[in-house]
Amino acid sequence: MESQCTFLFSEGSIDDRMLLGNKGAGLAEMSQLGLPVPPGFIVSTDACKVYQREGRLPEAVWQEVRERVRYLEVVTGRRFGGPDPLLVSVRSGAAISMPGMMDTVLNLGLNRKTVEGLAQATSDRRFAFDCHRRFIQMFATVVLQEEGDAFEAMIAQSMAAHGVSQDTELDEAALASLIEAFEAHLGERGRRVPDQPEEQLLLAIEAVFRSWDNPRAHAYREIHQVPEDLGTAVVVQSMVFGNRGQGSATGVLFTRNPNTGEKAVYGEYLQGAQGEDVVSGVRTPRPISQMQEDFPTAYRDLVRSAAILENHFRAMQEMEFTVEQGEFHILQTRNGKHSVLAGVRMAYDMVQEGLIAKREAVMRIDPESVSHLLHPRLDPGASVTVVALGLPASPGAVSGAVVFNAEEAEERGRAGEAIILVRPETNPDDIRGIYYARGVLTTRGGTTSHAAVVARGLGKPAITGCEALRIDLEAEALVGAGVTVRKNDRMTIDGSTGRVILGEAPTIASSLPDALGSILDWADDYKRLGVKANADTPTDAQQALDLGADGIGLCRTEHMFMGPERLPVMRRMIIAETEAERKEHLAQLEEMQEEDFYRIVGIMHDRTVTIRLLDPPMHEFLPKVPDIERSLAQAREAGDDESMQELTRTLHRAEALREFNPMLGLRGVRLAVLYPEIYEMQARAIFRATGRLIREGINARVQIMIPLVGMVSELDAMEQLIRSVHQAVEAELATAIPYQFGTMIEIPRAAVIAGALAERSEFFSFGTNDLTQTIYGFSRDDAEGKFLSAYQEQTLLTANPFMRVDEEGVGALIHMGVERGRKVRPAIELGVCGEHAGDPASVHFFHRADLDYVSCSPFRVPVARLAAAQAALQDRHGSSIE
Amino acid sequence: MESQCTFLFSEGSIDDRMLLGNKGAGLAEMSQLGLPVPPGFIVSTDACKVYQREGRLPEAVWQEVRERVRYLEVVTGRRFGGPDPLLVSVRSGAAISMPGMMDTVLNLGLNRKTVEGLAQATSDRRFAFDCHRRFIQMFATVVLQEEGDAFEAMIAQSMAAHGVSQDTELDEAALASLIEAFEAHLGERGRRVPDQPEEQLLLAIEAVFRSWDNPRAHAYREIHQVPEDLGTAVVVQSMVFGNRGQGSATGVLFTRNPNTGEKAVYGEYLQGAQGEDVVSGVRTPRPISQMQEDFPTAYRDLVRSAAILENHFRAMQEMEFTVEQGEFHILQTRNGKHSVLAGVRMAYDMVQEGLIAKREAVMRIDPESVSHLLHPRLDPGASVTVVALGLPASPGAVSGAVVFNAEEAEERGRAGEAIILVRPETNPDDIRGIYYARGVLTTRGGTTSHAAVVARGLGKPAITGCEALRIDLEAEALVGAGVTVRKNDRMTIDGSTGRVILGEAPTIASSLPDALGSILDWADDYKRLGVKANADTPTDAQQALDLGADGIGLCRTEHMFMGPERLPVMRRMIIAETEAERKEHLAQLEEMQEEDFYRIVGIMHDRTVTIRLLDPPMHEFLPKVPDIERSLAQAREAGDDESMQELTRTLHRAEALREFNPMLGLRGVRLAVLYPEIYEMQARAIFRATGRLIREGINARVQIMIPLVGMVSELDAMEQLIRSVHQAVEAELATAIPYQFGTMIEIPRAAVIAGALAERSEFFSFGTNDLTQTIYGFSRDDAEGKFLSAYQEQTLLTANPFMRVDEEGVGALIHMGVERGRKVRPAIELGVCGEHAGDPASVHFFHRADLDYVSCSPFRVPVARLAAAQAALQDRHGSSIE
Repeated sequence: MESQCTFLFSEGSIDDRMLLGNKGAGLAEMSQLGLPVPPGFIVSTDACKVYQREGRLPEAVWQEVRERVRYLEVVTGRRFGGPDPLLVSVRSGAAISMPGMMDTVLNLGLNRKTVEGLAQATSDRRFAFDCHRRFIQMFATVVLQEEGDAFEAMIAQSMAAHGVSQDTELDEAALASLIEAFEAHLGERGRRVPDQPEEQLLLAIEAVFRSWDNPRAHAYREIHQVPEDLGTAVVVQSMVFGNRGQGSATGVLFTRNPNTGEKAVYGEYLQGAQGEDVVSGVRTPRPISQMQEDFPTAYRDLVRSAAILENHFRAMQEMEFTVEQGEFHILQTRNGKHSVLAGVRMAYDMVQEGLIAKREAVMRIDPESVSHLLHPRLDPGASVTVVALGLPASPGAVSGAVVFNAEEAEERGRAGEAIILVRPETNPDDIRGIYYARGVLTTRGGTTSHAAVVARGLGKPAITGCEALRIDLEAEALVGAGVTVRKNDRMTIDGSTGRVILGEAPTIASSLPDALGSILDWADDYKRLGVKANADTPTDAQQALDLGADGIGLCRTEHMFMGPERLPVMRRMIIAETEAERKEHLAQLEEMQEEDFYRIVGIMHDRTVTIRLLDPPMHEFLPKVPDIERSLAQAREAGDDESMQELTRTLHRAEALREFNPMLGLRGVRLAVLYPEIYEMQARAIFRATGRLIREGINARVQIMIPLVGMVSELDAMEQLIRSVHQAVEAELATAIPYQFGTMIEIPRAAVIAGALAERSEFFSFGTNDLTQTIYGFSRDDAEGKFLSAYQEQTLLTANPFMRVDEEGVGALIHMGVERGRKVRPAIELGVCGEHAGDPASVHFFHRADLDYVSCSPFRVPVARLAAAQAALQDRHGSSIE
Repeated sequence: MESQCTFLFSEGSIDDRMLLGNKGAGLAEMSQLGLPVPPGFIVSTDACKVYQREGRLPEAVWQEVRERVRYLEVVTGRRFGGPDPLLVSVRSGAAISMPGMMDTVLNLGLNRKTVEGLAQATSDRRFAFDCHRRFIQMFATVVLQEEGDAFEAMIAQSMAAHGVSQDTELDEAALASLIEAFEAHLGERGRRVPDQPEEQLLLAIEAVFRSWDNPRAHAYREIHQVPEDLGTAVVVQSMVFGNRGQGSATGVLFTRNPNTGEKAVYGEYLQGAQGEDVVSGVRTPRPISQMQEDFPTAYRDLVRSAAILENHFRAMQEMEFTVEQGEFHILQTRNGKHSVLAGVRMAYDMVQEGLIAKREAVMRIDPESVSHLLHPRLDPGASVTVVALGLPASPGAVSGAVVFNAEEAEERGRAGEAIILVRPETNPDDIRGIYYARGVLTTRGGTTSHAAVVARGLGKPAITGCEALRIDLEAEALVGAGVTVRKNDRMTIDGSTGRVILGEAPTIASSLPDALGSILDWADDYKRLGVKANADTPTDAQQALDLGADGIGLCRTEHMFMGPERLPVMRRMIIAETEAERKEHLAQLEEMQEEDFYRIVGIMHDRTVTIRLLDPPMHEFLPKVPDIERSLAQAREAGDDESMQELTRTLHRAEALREFNPMLGLRGVRLAVLYPEIYEMQARAIFRATGRLIREGINARVQIMIPLVGMVSELDAMEQLIRSVHQAVEAELATAIPYQFGTMIEIPRAAVIAGALAERSEFFSFGTNDLTQTIYGFSRDDAEGKFLSAYQEQTLLTANPFMRVDEEGVGALIHMGVERGRKVRPAIELGVCGEHAGDPASVHFFHRADLDYVSCSPFRVPVARLAAAQAALQDRHGSSIE
């Protein structure tokens, strides 16, 4: 058996996919279930590997194949080359389905002699010639590698000559001369189809093996990450004929609706046709329900087979079948592809039907795909004109009129118009424009650029860094990729994929389907990781709750200062020349902050809210220097002395705050070392808001988190500062206000000194975005725009480390932080906040790294819940849960 | 003995410094050497600590003091308050000398009664009154904390009234009325000097203890990092009188010349004076040689004592002495302060004299101080007007005419004028200006800014980031700190300290003194660490050799492209639109590079040269965008189509290359991933140069180093690239060209994956500057300008981590890299390049971290050689080598 390279259907099962291919293993399984599978055998993937190595099929394998053919002759009562000739199909079938990627030859065994035998045996000369025409065409293109166009042209010529519009209408004579024409064409090119059926078979098997290496198969494997060394099996099966007149047919059936998941068979069929006719789309197939009328017996058998297969495989099946003169045959079954929505619904239904366990339903949903259900998205059925691809900065699809100016976007958006704001990049002055636009497109900047961050914060679709397009601000046009989009032209952006689309593409709204809600609830029972959300506003907080977040793991305070009424106050605070002046503006901001915290913490009730104190560099709040200079010139012209004075101060401050590397500058805790009054203000607002809630009987739970800490001394200073504010507010409100104090671990040094930090910190939140930037020494904005894609193309990187956490590097820092932190403070709470927290593969890593929770954007909470559950289940059952 | 708090000189030795203070221990030691030390005793630092704790001298200690006084009475034959009264001095003395910081009371024991006794016993009323006047004045200011000015005013008044110009000229009567006046003044303020000598003594001891906490002592300890909890001892010693007429004197003697190190006594003395008269400078002392005439016997005793003490302490001594009526007494000795140059010469001489061992000479030189001997430096004797302090970016002092424009600096500098180029910051266009200027001052940028790097590369003094000054380019003036420096004004910059000085300050040239050369040779015998130099030019390489470098540990190739003939070619390469065009310009650069390497590697002969391939972002080679725009406008006006075309391309390229965080952008190995032809060119130039040298019989040894590697895949790709170029050049020259291949470890991820990197790397060079930036997440340019000083002021940081390596953070990465690298490749060569390599404390760390070598700028090679030797010696002998 060791050297056995061919297998009858009775000799294998679905578990032999690696050896027999998915198709062969499915046929074996079905055959053993007693389903009507035409007899056949499989040449294994081992044979393929030998073929690839040696360049020819070894004699021993060929002898096996010949013996199998003898067996087919016996069971069918027909002979290869005989008067009632045995005809076979030769089909590819890899362990992992690669639909349409490799080759197939049908009707093999025909030649000038056997075609006559077939005609006699079936009493249907036209049918026999149709089979012969098909065979020559397929053999020529697949085995002899001839161009297919010439054959299609000859068919078209023949149809035109005979005044018919479909090849089924070509009569016996027409087909006979088409065969002559085919053979003549081949002859002219010095090629011929061999007469000997065995020679045909050998060449066809080798051709299928070779097709593993064709360019489209390579491309498919690269995209779908199918290993290159699997090889394909070959299925040799006695033919059944869907093309034997109108009493025959061929079709495809899904056991459930692959778009909606509805439990009802779904599919289509074509009368008088063979498989490739369905695929080629030359004729329009009929919906499967029609079969009930056309082929009542076969339909009954089909539906019964579908039920058997679904029950057996406990998954929706996609079946290929043929009806030959009313009799039903199955040619293939596999787990069917379906939409995300359908997958969710089916998993839920199957649990209800008792077909699968809850944990299996949880394991079946691709977490990543779930996010597509939550944002408005492009109608997948619509055809669209994609003009460029930018960075997918904030998910969702949206259409509107293009506007190049934030003020105009604000004005028109406020009036209710759908606007897409298009800018080279955005700055805090554009906040109102972004707020009132439906979506944002920038030609520069990465997925953490200002536009991206603000858009995500506002839940608006955005594309950033679309460098293929150039903005001509003077002409108010977006130019590049061969098109010009002018102001007011309609455009659609798909922030989930980065596609920039001309005109208004149809979108579909999303909401959490009920079935998904149930599956997520089941997931929560399995997961060990908590899933919190990043939320900066009451709206975000409510959404986080609705999507099942266990709390808010990151409440960023900077966006609170970006609002239209707050930015001017913030700016006055920044340009203040004395501490007293600064404190005056801070007092104004404090009232607003207190209200923010009161509402957010109130919504979350007894779930923890982790508030990160001010983090970004101050210049992010100021207009850009050239903009100030322009305003200054205007004020000078208008003789507006007061404005001039403030603008001059703003200019000096902006110049003083200018940084060489803003990412590595005056931000995070460093701000508080220089201006402690800012954190004091924030801490006071937090404690006052919390105190008020506690007095109202709410068990409010807040954590205060210090960003960018790299030294123990920084954390010490902040702990003192926060503690003293806390004492003052507790005294003022005469209320005990519990809180926890902790730090981000977002620069490598923090991981190194995590032990000492844990002495002062009740929790750590790993900031994997900044850790990635600092451990690699590349900023996201620069790397994504300039070289990460080249790294991925040259396979120096297999994944974008900003999307999937770098386990080797950043992971090592996390392990270090976890180990050193827990050693000093075993009860320390350990989480991760940032985009990686919403990436399923990264969530698996965070589970294995033994963190307590992940915190991601609200829309990705369901993704993370699923991924966390799957990680826990895999942990329990090993990686082969299915 | 446990509770003993007072000690006779016979009860201690120099080893009891911590308990007896440096002065007390020295007196004890001298007394036991048989030198003429007046009898006395010491109240220990333990007593001081008790006093500080309890606020008063405990009764038990006081009783001890009284017993010691009884002893003094016995040995001197005088009595406290007696007719021939015992007078004592009460002097402070901490374990670590803090000269002049704490208080002293002389002539204690006088009152209206004992002053008469003293007058009678000495037959010198004037002398007795002089002592009394001094005592009251000192007691009032030190113990009663009265302002000293009132007393000085009364003395001045008296001198004026008596028509004399020196207090020695005041006669008995004048002194008597002065005493009256002092007492009346005190009486008016409700204070008095107690009559009882014992009460005087108790109060004086307590006052000296209190003086440990006076503000100037605090400040001194902060600056000199003297621990706050040491406390001071008090020396109580029977008085000898330098003020007993012209036959008496008091003085200070250095056993060698503290400025030059020459072996000859050096010092001065004042006749008829007490200690404070020498210090106060009211009279001009005489040089010590004069004593030979004035006091022949005492001079002989003095010189003999000096020889004894220097032999005993094996170090230059600074002695205080008094001659009373011709008789010589020593009051203090300590290791004397001296100039760097003197220290070097003395250490060398003492080895020649057999006084100290070579290793001791090596241990005695402060490595940091040695660097001051190598750059032209400000004449320390000159008085200068410092107007501002910037960052010391490139050492050395230089004067010249201020110019605000690089072209003008070039033009006038080329013509031989001494120019200081002053710019807000510099860019590659300024290179010629910097080249022809004597020194550079920028108001922005850190010590790794363009100006700093280029200036250091050229060996020009530079100050950067001098933010106290503002440049008004329109008015061509430097404004701030209350001054305005106009174009052509003379200015001096001291790049060693960051001092900006008005006018032309005198400087002194430096060269490696012979004595230092010998000591460095001895150091080389002790050190384990190799010391290499960073050198980018043949001049640097020669200097490195001259200063004793073991090789070139970092040869940066980017500066080679900055030269006036090369920059234009480099720019054309960068703006090339096709690979072919790029290669054409690279071919031009290749010739120049080959010549560079041929010369540098040739100079180093068989010492290794480690060449780092191109590292900085390409935009550093292009002019700034506004500058291009200006040139473009000019070209347009002039109708120069060709220029316009090139400038337009430059502009587009510069815009495309613009980065958000240049430090974290497209640089290092990333350049070679995108444009492999650049590294190919460099490798070819290196191998061709090396091959030529080998054919000339030179055993050239080169290492090729890849910068900014963070992934194994990057190093793999580079290894292949270099190997294939190497094979081609070996074939072309038909010569075997040995080389080593390795990587920088300069981002945290490289340290984490050091094991895998070591599989491909024959050496690692730790780039501690970038490691510091990335582990802390702050860029040097931003941090030094914006917040590091606040961190140091608030003691959140004790040292600038860019100057002294951060052992806890960066050190952890180095340990990780060393351990993981050696585990995989035990013979791997491990070094560190960058500024830390020239910092003595950091060199100690690198020694302990078991690196193979450090590589610093040529001028710091002697510093590193010394530090490396000291680290090795400390390792061998523990930290108490002296």
